[in-house]
Amino acid sequence: MTYEDIETPAPLVDLAIVDANLKRMQDYCDRHGIALRPHIKTHKSVAMAKRQLALGARGITCQTLGEAEIMADAGFDDILISYPLIGKVKRLAALAARIRLTVAIDSLAALEAAAEAATLAGSDIAVLVEFDTGAKRTGVVSVEEALALAGKVTGTGNLVFAGLMTYPANENTVTFVNAARAAFEQAGIAIPLVSGGGTPDAFLVHTLGVIDELRVGTYIYNDRMMMGASHARLEDCAFDVVVTVVSRPEPDRAVIDAGSKSLTSDPSGKGGPGHGLIREYPDAVIDRLSEEHGMVDLSKCDRKPEIGERLRVVPNHVCPVTNLHDQVLVLENGTISAWAVDARGLTR
Amino acid sequence: MTYEDIETPAPLVDLAIVDANLKRMQDYCDRHGIALRPHIKTHKSVAMAKRQLALGARGITCQTLGEAEIMADAGFDDILISYPLIGKVKRLAALAARIRLTVAIDSLAALEAAAEAATLAGSDIAVLVEFDTGAKRTGVVSVEEALALAGKVTGTGNLVFAGLMTYPANENTVTFVNAARAAFEQAGIAIPLVSGGGTPDAFLVHTLGVIDELRVGTYIYNDRMMMGASHARLEDCAFDVVVTVVSRPEPDRAVIDAGSKSLTSDPSGKGGPGHGLIREYPDAVIDRLSEEHGMVDLSKCDRKPEIGERLRVVPNHVCPVTNLHDQVLVLENGTISAWAVDARGLTR
Repeated sequence: MTYEDIETPAPLVDLAIVDANLKRMQDYCDRHGIALRPHIKTHKSVAMAKRQLALGARGITCQTLGEAEIMADAGFDDILISYPLIGKVKRLAALAARIRLTVAIDSLAALEAAAEAATLAGSDIAVLVEFDTGAKRTGVVSVEEALALAGKVTGTGNLVFAGLMTYPANENTVTFVNAARAAFEQAGIAIPLVSGGGTPDAFLVHTLGVIDELRVGTYIYNDRMMMGASHARLEDCAFDVVVTVVSRPEPDRAVIDAGSKSLTSDPSGKGGPGHGLIREYPDAVIDRLSEEHGMVDLSKCDRKPEIGERLRVVPNHVCPVTNLHDQVLVLENGTISAWAVDARGLTR
Repeated sequence: MTYEDIETPAPLVDLAIVDANLKRMQDYCDRHGIALRPHIKTHKSVAMAKRQLALGARGITCQTLGEAEIMADAGFDDILISYPLIGKVKRLAALAARIRLTVAIDSLAALEAAAEAATLAGSDIAVLVEFDTGAKRTGVVSVEEALALAGKVTGTGNLVFAGLMTYPANENTVTFVNAARAAFEQAGIAIPLVSGGGTPDAFLVHTLGVIDELRVGTYIYNDRMMMGASHARLEDCAFDVVVTVVSRPEPDRAVIDAGSKSLTSDPSGKGGPGHGLIREYPDAVIDRLSEEHGMVDLSKCDRKPEIGERLRVVPNHVCPVTNLHDQVLVLENGTISAWAVDARGLTR
C-alpha cells in the first residue's frame, strides 16, 4: 500500500520514529539504572509491546484486566496492572494462574479482591500500594494509609508486597517516599520498589532519586500534548491521522473528514490551539469538530488546501485516538501495512 | 444476564425507553406530514435501524460510506449518505449498484465524484445539495451556489437532483429555502425535497414550514446534551454507562472505572457540569477524566457511594460513546443481552 492508497481518515504510524522514541527512553532508563515498564495503553498492540521488550523493558504495564489478558495471550508473562481491580476476582485469578502478575491497590477492598484472586489461583500476586502525588485520582493520600495497607499485604496469604507506586512522579513523590521509608523501616517492612509514571517529565525522573521503575505510555507515539509538555518535538511524533479535505465552503474554511470519532475531543494541554496540528498547514487551526467533520480555520494560512488534498494531523492526545481504531497503518522502510490494535476497546 | 452480572464499564440500553423515543419521533413526523429518515450514526446498529424502519421511517441516513455499506449488507435499500464523499469513487459505485442511494454534495468535486461513481455503477445516484444554515461546517453558503450545483446535477448522466439538505434546520433554513424556491423556479428546476436535521429542535421542525424530511440520530438514546437542549428529560435517556466505584481516596472523592475511553471527553452543552450524570448521585460531579479514571466530586452529596458500588452514568454525548463499544447491553423485559454495534469505528 502506498500513501496515496490510504482511505481516509486513517491512523498512520512512522515506525522509524517509534523505534527512535523507544530507544531514547530505554537508553535513558539504562543510563540511570531505572527499570522501564512501558504502559501499553497508548498503542494497545502486541507487536509494539514486543518491540519495547526487545529493547530491554522489564515487563509491561496495563491499565485494564482486558488489556492484560490480551497481552498474556500473546506470551507476555510479567505484567503490572496499575489500577485497582474491583469486582473482577475470577478473571484476576485466571490471569494470576498463568503469568507473573502485579496489581496496584489503594484500599482494603482492592487488597481483599487481590487476596481472594490469589487464593483462587493458588498463585502469588505481587502488590504495589498506590499513593497520590497530586493527581488526585486513585492512590492513598498518607504514609500511614500506605503503611497500613502494606502491613496487611505482608500478612495475607498469597500476596507479596512489591513496593509503592504513583502517577505522576514529581517532587511530591520524593517527600512521600522519604517519609514512607522512615515509617516502613520502623515497622520492619522493606520497600522493594518505587514505581513512578508519566511521559511528560519522564526524562527528569532520575533527578528525583527515588524512582526504581518507570511506567510510560505516550512516549512511543507522542502527540501535541507531549509537545506542549516539552517532552517531544514535532519530529518525535510518530502517529498521524491521515485525512482528506472534503469541503471548502468559504475562502477561510476547509472541512476535513476527521471529527471527534477520529481525533477525539481531548484538549492539547499546552500543545496549541484546536483539535490537532496539520503538518502541511501548521498555521491552520482545526477549531471545531463534529463527529465526522473537522472545521479548519485557514485565516492565518498563506497557502490554503483544496478539496481532495490529503493532510496529516498530529492528534492532541494520541492514547484515546488509538483506541478508536481496530488497526493502525504502519510505515516501515517505505511500505505501509496494517497492524492490529489488539486491545482496542478493552476497557474492562 | 442480570444487572449484577455486568462487568463494568459497560453501556446499557433500556429498550423500553428506546421504543418510546422512536415512537414519539415517528408520531411527530406522521402528524406533521414529514418523512423521517433516522441517522444511524448514534446507534450504528442494524437491529436498532430495523426498529426505526418498522415504525415507519422512510429510509436511513448514514454519515460515512462504511456505515452505509454495513447497512446495505443488512438489507437496507434506501440510504442517504449526508456527507460529501471525496476520493471514494469505487466503493461508492459498488454501493450505488446495489441500493437506492442518495448522497449530499456541496462542491463540484463532490458532484464529479458522484457522477463518476454513478457511471461506473451503471445506476442512478440521487443527489441532495447541502446548504449551510449557520453550523458553518459543510454546505454551500449561497442560493447561487446551490442553484449552480443543482443545474449541473440535472445535466449530468446518471445523477438525479433530489433536492436540498441542511443541518441543523432552523430559521435560517426558511430564509434560504424561500430564496432558493424563487431562484430555482426561475431556472426551471424543481426542488423535490428539503431535508433538515438535528435532534435538539426536532419537535419544532414543523413550525418552519419548509422541511419535508427529518434526519435525526440522537433521539433514539438521548443524553445530557439533549437534556440541556430541552429535547429530553432524564427519563427519556435510554443509554447509560454502568460503572463501578474503584477508589475512595478522600471523603469527598470517588473514582469510577470509566474515563475518556468509556465516556469520551465531549462536553455536555447546557446539560450540566462534568462528564456525565450519575443517576444514583445526581449531586455528584464527574469533574475530571483520565483514560480509565473518572474523578467524582462528592462534596455536594449527602449520601456518598462506597467502593464496589455500581452506578449508572448518563453520558454527555452518546454518539461518540456508542462508537467506543463493539456491543451494547440491552435491557428488554427484565433480561439483558448483548447487541452488536455493527458500524463501530467505520469512519471511512
